[in-house]
Amino acid sequence: MTEPLTLSIDAMGGDNAPEMVIGGIEVSLARLSQVNFLLFGDQVRLTQLLKLHPRVAAVSEIRHTDEAITNDQKVSSALRTGRNSSMRLAIDAVGSGEAAGVISAGNTGALMAMAKFVLKTLPGIDRPAIAGYYPTQRGESVMLDLGANVDCDADNLVQFAVMGEVFARNVLGLENPSIGILNVGAENLKGNEAVKKASMMLQETTLPIKFHGFIEGDDIGLGTVDVVVTDGFTGNIALKTSEGTAKMFGEFLKQALSESLISKFGALLARSALKKFKMRVDPRLYNGAMFLGLNGICIKSHGGTDAFGFANAIHVAIEMITHSFNEGIKQDYAQLSGHQPELKEAVGDE
Amino acid sequence: MTEPLTLSIDAMGGDNAPEMVIGGIEVSLARLSQVNFLLFGDQVRLTQLLKLHPRVAAVSEIRHTDEAITNDQKVSSALRTGRNSSMRLAIDAVGSGEAAGVISAGNTGALMAMAKFVLKTLPGIDRPAIAGYYPTQRGESVMLDLGANVDCDADNLVQFAVMGEVFARNVLGLENPSIGILNVGAENLKGNEAVKKASMMLQETTLPIKFHGFIEGDDIGLGTVDVVVTDGFTGNIALKTSEGTAKMFGEFLKQALSESLISKFGALLARSALKKFKMRVDPRLYNGAMFLGLNGICIKSHGGTDAFGFANAIHVAIEMITHSFNEGIKQDYAQLSGHQPELKEAVGDE
Repeated sequence: MTEPLTLSIDAMGGDNAPEMVIGGIEVSLARLSQVNFLLFGDQVRLTQLLKLHPRVAAVSEIRHTDEAITNDQKVSSALRTGRNSSMRLAIDAVGSGEAAGVISAGNTGALMAMAKFVLKTLPGIDRPAIAGYYPTQRGESVMLDLGANVDCDADNLVQFAVMGEVFARNVLGLENPSIGILNVGAENLKGNEAVKKASMMLQETTLPIKFHGFIEGDDIGLGTVDVVVTDGFTGNIALKTSEGTAKMFGEFLKQALSESLISKFGALLARSALKKFKMRVDPRLYNGAMFLGLNGICIKSHGGTDAFGFANAIHVAIEMITHSFNEGIKQDYAQLSGHQPELKEAVGDE
Repeated sequence: MTEPLTLSIDAMGGDNAPEMVIGGIEVSLARLSQVNFLLFGDQVRLTQLLKLHPRVAAVSEIRHTDEAITNDQKVSSALRTGRNSSMRLAIDAVGSGEAAGVISAGNTGALMAMAKFVLKTLPGIDRPAIAGYYPTQRGESVMLDLGANVDCDADNLVQFAVMGEVFARNVLGLENPSIGILNVGAENLKGNEAVKKASMMLQETTLPIKFHGFIEGDDIGLGTVDVVVTDGFTGNIALKTSEGTAKMFGEFLKQALSESLISKFGALLARSALKKFKMRVDPRLYNGAMFLGLNGICIKSHGGTDAFGFANAIHVAIEMITHSFNEGIKQDYAQLSGHQPELKEAVGDE
């Protein structure tokens, strides 16, 4: 980066906001330079916090509002009455061009709806999707949609495939990323109508997309493909099921290792290995879900994360900005829809 | 058990059949008495195998057929041309009353279709479901449907809830099992139409069902409820995602513990604890998916399991038989539909 970058922060979103948010910026500063922050939220609380975090204060500007979106607030109410909320004002800063991206740990549904309303979708995209990184045996992969669209048809899934492909190529730097559609079996005949039709469309298209075909749930952890495409209902449940399994595993391992003196001693000797193992599957490392398909960068942090996790969400935003993800997707879509009428239809560019 | 029980076995189903199947019976005998087996499959191969397993030979009878359903065979073809297959003949033995239950590690779709055709569904059940045990931080829970029904409406989900409740009460011995519907959030407004309507039906019914409400993916591993209800598409993917995460964890742990001499020594000291941990999450312990809602006991073993896993599927069959699951569900349904017209409608008892 040569010019300083400005990020817009919903300082009041998240279970432990604004403390966790300011703490997260502090953590992120260890790896950042030339980044400024616009903090939207309660001036009194934020001013007090910045006194404890002088390094954050040096690169931040507070924009006061005493309104905030709550976690249980309905999307319709957030859209109607939340115009002065910290979340909405933080998004507006991206819409006006003042900030290059926004990060919030608040209400996911409200964030998506407001971001869609303010930033609009990119040309060719009907519905934005939530994408996230996850660890696999082969390295990191990307999965989408993680919950923005509960009901998806084949066209939506094809759009997700294209967005995922562009993301993996531009942000992950993969030359020819492979795409799989999550299903209950690998055979063409398996699954519901949406996945069967989407798979057929991706098989038949002459687009330069490396479509692997269907994958099953266990392929996620194996890292069989670089991009996992699924509807938001299944994707959200798969992601959280995986988190729950990971927690259960950690708990069982802790119990086993603490049950006798000798196993405790063994665990003590192996503590550096166990710590490395724990870090490798730390969910905070994968915090920061990306809203793909919007005309602006918007990152959703887990509401219950801590400063370390929030810092990761900040880094995800910066990665997307510096790799010009949205420019990439716009160019790719323009190119694709130019000579691919069947995809033009598939991706909803009417 | 006072009388000997007869189980019917599809000896040719599974990746390593019939060796794995006969080996599985051998393993199961260590915990069983008074159980006889009808082995359907190739007489020459089975006779040779039984020479190596005299204990199995002593309690088994071979029923020859040289036909078998393949893993990639379509359900329609299996139904039409598979009348003399080992799978079909094994199911027929339950239909005729010769055997108390059937176990197969073969093609899941074919097994469900044939079992439904031969055994029929229980009164009040539109569509049978596949149910399985899984480990949680609180102990074992049950999840259904794991893949029999890719598209489910609210009525199907309510039927699954009732079947799961009866199962948990009769087979798991829980007095008042709690039921949750898998969703993308806990709030009433979240999710697709099917889960919203099913939840409303279960909230409003006066049935003696302990309905917890919606649960999320991470609640599966936490053990928040005793019975997890979901459609077959989501259930199958959630289960396999969880298996994939478990494998990834195991792999990461192994890598971490073998990376230095001192961590290897630590792992050696903790080996009994690590072994206990490994056993606790061994997928073979949870092998044996139950087809609920059929007028007969039918258990599906994982096709790629080994003798230890297949033995577990045998034990699952015996548990269901000795706890008279089907009698329980019939009685419960009769009672429920007698004074609950809204459930009668919901459970499809037309």
